[in-house]
Amino acid sequence: MNSLPFQVRYWDGSSATYGQEEPRFTLVFKEKVPLLKWLRSPVLSFGEAYMDGVVDIEGQIADVIELASGSGALHGKRTPSLLRKGISLRKEKENVQHHYDVGNDFYSLWLDETMSYSCAYFRSPEDSLEQAQLQKIDYVLKKLQLRPGETLLDIGSGWGWLILRAAKEYGVKAKGITLSEEQYRKSRERIAEHGLQGQAEVELLDYRELAARGDEFDKIAIVGMFEHVGRQHFPAFMKAVQTLLKGGGMALLHTITQAKEVPTDPWIQKYIFPGGYIPSLREVVALLPDFGFHLLDIENLRSHYALTLDHWAIRYEDSAEKTRKMFDERFVRMWRLYLQSSAAAFRLGDLHLHQILFSNGITEDAAMTRDHLYR
Amino acid sequence: MNSLPFQVRYWDGSSATYGQEEPRFTLVFKEKVPLLKWLRSPVLSFGEAYMDGVVDIEGQIADVIELASGSGALHGKRTPSLLRKGISLRKEKENVQHHYDVGNDFYSLWLDETMSYSCAYFRSPEDSLEQAQLQKIDYVLKKLQLRPGETLLDIGSGWGWLILRAAKEYGVKAKGITLSEEQYRKSRERIAEHGLQGQAEVELLDYRELAARGDEFDKIAIVGMFEHVGRQHFPAFMKAVQTLLKGGGMALLHTITQAKEVPTDPWIQKYIFPGGYIPSLREVVALLPDFGFHLLDIENLRSHYALTLDHWAIRYEDSAEKTRKMFDERFVRMWRLYLQSSAAAFRLGDLHLHQILFSNGITEDAAMTRDHLYR
Repeated sequence: MNSLPFQVRYWDGSSATYGQEEPRFTLVFKEKVPLLKWLRSPVLSFGEAYMDGVVDIEGQIADVIELASGSGALHGKRTPSLLRKGISLRKEKENVQHHYDVGNDFYSLWLDETMSYSCAYFRSPEDSLEQAQLQKIDYVLKKLQLRPGETLLDIGSGWGWLILRAAKEYGVKAKGITLSEEQYRKSRERIAEHGLQGQAEVELLDYRELAARGDEFDKIAIVGMFEHVGRQHFPAFMKAVQTLLKGGGMALLHTITQAKEVPTDPWIQKYIFPGGYIPSLREVVALLPDFGFHLLDIENLRSHYALTLDHWAIRYEDSAEKTRKMFDERFVRMWRLYLQSSAAAFRLGDLHLHQILFSNGITEDAAMTRDHLYR
Repeated sequence: MNSLPFQVRYWDGSSATYGQEEPRFTLVFKEKVPLLKWLRSPVLSFGEAYMDGVVDIEGQIADVIELASGSGALHGKRTPSLLRKGISLRKEKENVQHHYDVGNDFYSLWLDETMSYSCAYFRSPEDSLEQAQLQKIDYVLKKLQLRPGETLLDIGSGWGWLILRAAKEYGVKAKGITLSEEQYRKSRERIAEHGLQGQAEVELLDYRELAARGDEFDKIAIVGMFEHVGRQHFPAFMKAVQTLLKGGGMALLHTITQAKEVPTDPWIQKYIFPGGYIPSLREVVALLPDFGFHLLDIENLRSHYALTLDHWAIRYEDSAEKTRKMFDERFVRMWRLYLQSSAAAFRLGDLHLHQILFSNGITEDAAMTRDHLYR
């Protein structure tokens, strides 16, 4: 048990205090909860009770997560069967849509202008969210050492800002693929708005479908998408990247990681990212040589994701009334818990964000040093 | 079989040509060789025949290595039993001495002024060797984000330049350990010459012996030493680092790696680095979370080691006459083959050099970006 002091207040007015010091937060149980279910699945039960308003937190969600992280509740006894369960292509599309087709109107309430829904890159903690997202996109494109005339593929291209920027500022031919119809629609609009038809394009397509066509690219970006692939598909994903990436070409994989192979939080699995799995860094690194990839560079941006999530959580609260009208109070509480608990997990080091740069075989023309990223 | 064209000339004057194009080199067999031994152990047999002058190369050693790399002779059927064989502490000391106690006089013939015997860091391919070695030392110390007053441990401290530099320019208390008596003697001389007694010290000690004392350091550097540890000792090594590194402290592991787990070349094993094993990057990365380490940064300096070895090989040839007088022609040819074939192996991507930065648990005060390395 972690020593973080806290209080619990029950529906009948009674309360209990844990730890010696001033309580950091109070868990309020407004009604009786099914104890056996809680013991069997504490994380899922807590998440659902919070969503339903059966449990409230007086204090910071981050502190509750810190307590749970220390107690081991977030690790260990989860549902590994989910990891082994194969899911079909159609199911994957449904999973992606579950999350992203909540609606562009919802995401635009609290994401920045670029609609970047992945870890930003802060040169300073004072950078604005939009500035940091633009910096992230440039940082990814610089790591890929794009040259005019090259071809770039963005697997899981989101709302399309990366391919727009690459086509416009780096002179490459950029293609994005996504499984989200809402993202696809928005990306097409943006390409037209910027007059980039012919330089940038997007398709509603799975990575395996594209690999089957035999197209090849000089560079590949994979930003905040690998978390949706599912552990059982990692080899197929790497195989597709190997097929899609020219010999000597480079790929940048930007993904959340965990230190060890732990199944996804069952509450996150059920409500936020069905079918998702956060890889351990070591299982990603272990796969690379099996596909002839050479590791060039890894950077840990853990603290950047904590900051990004702080920004989102604040903006999310600012627009909570609108979200409540679009959906309901339960939805509002669900996303609050997701954003704030994720920020805490990065801060505690339970989650990391790694950018992994690798080449297909050896690459002769990679920059000799990383100076070019910081000029 | 790789398509690299080459010629073979035999002791009886006959010859054979392989490949369609102009031969890149000629292997000259001056006398009959035991075919069965060559088939069983081609790499070891070739290395010994070259040392003995039974085989000569008209052309570049690098091209012979490229041919062998493509043919698979350098991979696959090696002697994995060596990997499993436990070796005693005493044996390890003998192994280290086998290589490093060849004599300071020998190494100073062709190493740079700092006597740095590991991959240098070239800001430009035109940098001199000494400049690049000084840059490497600063690069390692910068990655460790040293602050005045901190303690630094250098495991495998070589001839001591890194601890001298750290004590003098970064204001830390630096300690080095080595198993080589020649290195130990030279390092002590240098500390005295620079008047750094009290700020820098060196001990003739194994890492496990130091860990057993219970000392702790803020930062740890491990530069070109892990290659000697031996695969069976990797967990014990990491355990020692865990013991020696304060919570939140950082360590920088600078090591040659291979893509996959391949036993060391049997010729290298027998003549150059007895007991050594080149780790795969993935087996190092896989160990980290088992000891509570978080991965912060990895950089691949493969092309830098090819350049470093080119410099050494040229300087080595310039002083070959002196080496011949110290030892004999067989020794001269042995080291020539080692230096030139290693350069080729890095160039071909059979070997890599990775700098791996990690922290013991999470570290709160790590730099947010890598900008500070490039200012």
